[in-house]
Amino acid sequence: MLDFINTVTIDDENSELIILDQTLLPNQTKFLHLKTKKEFWDAIYKLQVRGAPAIGIAAAFGIYLCAKNVDTEDYQAFYDAFMEDKAYLASSRPTAVNLFWALDRMEKCVIDNKDKSVADIKKALLHESEKILDEDIRTCEQIGENGLSLLKPNMGLLTHCNAGTLATGRYGTALSPIYRGQEKGYNFKVFADETRPLLQGARLTSWELNKFGVDVTLICDNMASIVMKNGWVDAVLVGCDRVASNGDTANKIGTSGVAILAREYGIPFYVLGPLSTIDMATPTGKEIKIEERPGEEIYKMWYERPMAPEGIKTYNPAFDVTDAKYITAIITEKGIAYPPFSESLKKMFE
Amino acid sequence: MLDFINTVTIDDENSELIILDQTLLPNQTKFLHLKTKKEFWDAIYKLQVRGAPAIGIAAAFGIYLCAKNVDTEDYQAFYDAFMEDKAYLASSRPTAVNLFWALDRMEKCVIDNKDKSVADIKKALLHESEKILDEDIRTCEQIGENGLSLLKPNMGLLTHCNAGTLATGRYGTALSPIYRGQEKGYNFKVFADETRPLLQGARLTSWELNKFGVDVTLICDNMASIVMKNGWVDAVLVGCDRVASNGDTANKIGTSGVAILAREYGIPFYVLGPLSTIDMATPTGKEIKIEERPGEEIYKMWYERPMAPEGIKTYNPAFDVTDAKYITAIITEKGIAYPPFSESLKKMFE
Repeated sequence: MLDFINTVTIDDENSELIILDQTLLPNQTKFLHLKTKKEFWDAIYKLQVRGAPAIGIAAAFGIYLCAKNVDTEDYQAFYDAFMEDKAYLASSRPTAVNLFWALDRMEKCVIDNKDKSVADIKKALLHESEKILDEDIRTCEQIGENGLSLLKPNMGLLTHCNAGTLATGRYGTALSPIYRGQEKGYNFKVFADETRPLLQGARLTSWELNKFGVDVTLICDNMASIVMKNGWVDAVLVGCDRVASNGDTANKIGTSGVAILAREYGIPFYVLGPLSTIDMATPTGKEIKIEERPGEEIYKMWYERPMAPEGIKTYNPAFDVTDAKYITAIITEKGIAYPPFSESLKKMFE
Repeated sequence: MLDFINTVTIDDENSELIILDQTLLPNQTKFLHLKTKKEFWDAIYKLQVRGAPAIGIAAAFGIYLCAKNVDTEDYQAFYDAFMEDKAYLASSRPTAVNLFWALDRMEKCVIDNKDKSVADIKKALLHESEKILDEDIRTCEQIGENGLSLLKPNMGLLTHCNAGTLATGRYGTALSPIYRGQEKGYNFKVFADETRPLLQGARLTSWELNKFGVDVTLICDNMASIVMKNGWVDAVLVGCDRVASNGDTANKIGTSGVAILAREYGIPFYVLGPLSTIDMATPTGKEIKIEERPGEEIYKMWYERPMAPEGIKTYNPAFDVTDAKYITAIITEKGIAYPPFSESLKKMFE
């Protein structure tokens, strides 16, 4: 196995949440040892931990550590304190679905064990949070195995944004087949789009691929076309934020452009994510609302001085929707779905 | 007429080269008043003036000012001094074709007037440099008129990189139809790709469009797909660095991706440039060599700290080639060429 970094974990004494501070990457690899609920909240709010699965894992360990410190033997008092901490942590990123999902699951664990002693409930909560991490690792591993079955050694691959170790428990989603292949000596050559405006590809993807020994080349987003034209890309692998039941896929801004280029150059375009990302209640991409973010991200960000005239109008959507017709296959831990996705995705849930 | 800025000009006393310092844009609008050959050389070398036509104009005025200060009545002594200055200025950017073209034309002016007094040769040189500026203005104006004939009021337009006032004598090439339309109240809505890695779209195009009252919205390169999908773009206008005789077009990196997206979304894709950019000696885009530039431009540039891990591999081509099949029309001062370009471009030279 590769020498993976733990993006989010708990220490051996079960007393600290340990997080790799992603805001300092790629210049500094620093782990935060967090003990208080304020520290947990800040880490999620400030994006020191990011990526839907990783946020869920951090919230699970976080709420466990909060609960552990509640000094009472009375169930109702314990539950009330738990719910207060839960609401507080949930307020750190109000649109992060995995955050609520993990906290709800932890609450269910409390309720399911209400007949036990508070000390035993605390043990059950630790177990549940470890399970959440463990399940994520296994899910990603299986996504990787399924994705790898579509790839061959020495292939050139292209990815957009970051759907790797830094966003999950271990293998990532889009990057999981790359890491599984790396473990088996597949010798992939990977191109990482820098992914403007927030540069997750430059700061995070190229960092982690490089760290784990994968041959990675960083490019600007607008270079994907020439890289494909040069014949250097055999498959595109991307993650997903939400997949509609017809296969339309919302993912980081720019993904739809990469998909169109891939089709034009005859390159397979694969979407990878856990089954939980597929939202059968959403019929098509048209129903997915796209978040718009402030223009400063485009013209200010890490620059010493603004890179556009003061007061310039901007359009800064955080995501775009890739139409199902550009997607070769959608890969989850349950298998590989091919078009027509309205049928194949439904089957995955059976 | 719009209240244009003079990117490059000469002062009323014909003693100073005046250049808008583009390295300070968009934060500062500062004109440099340059008198010495070292200052002219620096301005070109440091990209304070950029864009092929603008560099040519600066070199023409520059070599005139050098010649003006040569204190001799003897033709041979004058010519020798001229040639020394010419070689010096030509060394400022060794791959800029317009730089050599303008300097050669000025040399020809000296030789053509060799029977006149040195004072009269100096006058002829001033006249020739003014003609170079004037011809560029007229060429760009005509490109704009021809381009405008393809557009309608209230259209949404998208452009990539900078082919505007800041690259030429006045109207620019790709931006010329926008400015001609603006003068006639066309009310275009323009999207400017920021154009990584050097951000000419953010720093220059959005600055100049905004300054001349055009409704401009700045986007990251990877947002062109969603903007087109939203139905906001009726035509794409781009400049060109070199057009092969079959219509294949080399232009700023990312242009080929925009062209493929435009075709996918059914949007006309127009290439605009002076006839001098069409290189009938180059049969196809395959023969155009693409310059690769240092990776620092991608991960360092204006950032306070590097945006990718130290030593990361990069690929940084300055240009890409857009296949002729994606181009709706090529627009020069001589008219509009439609496919098949191998025939229509040939006709333009007749």
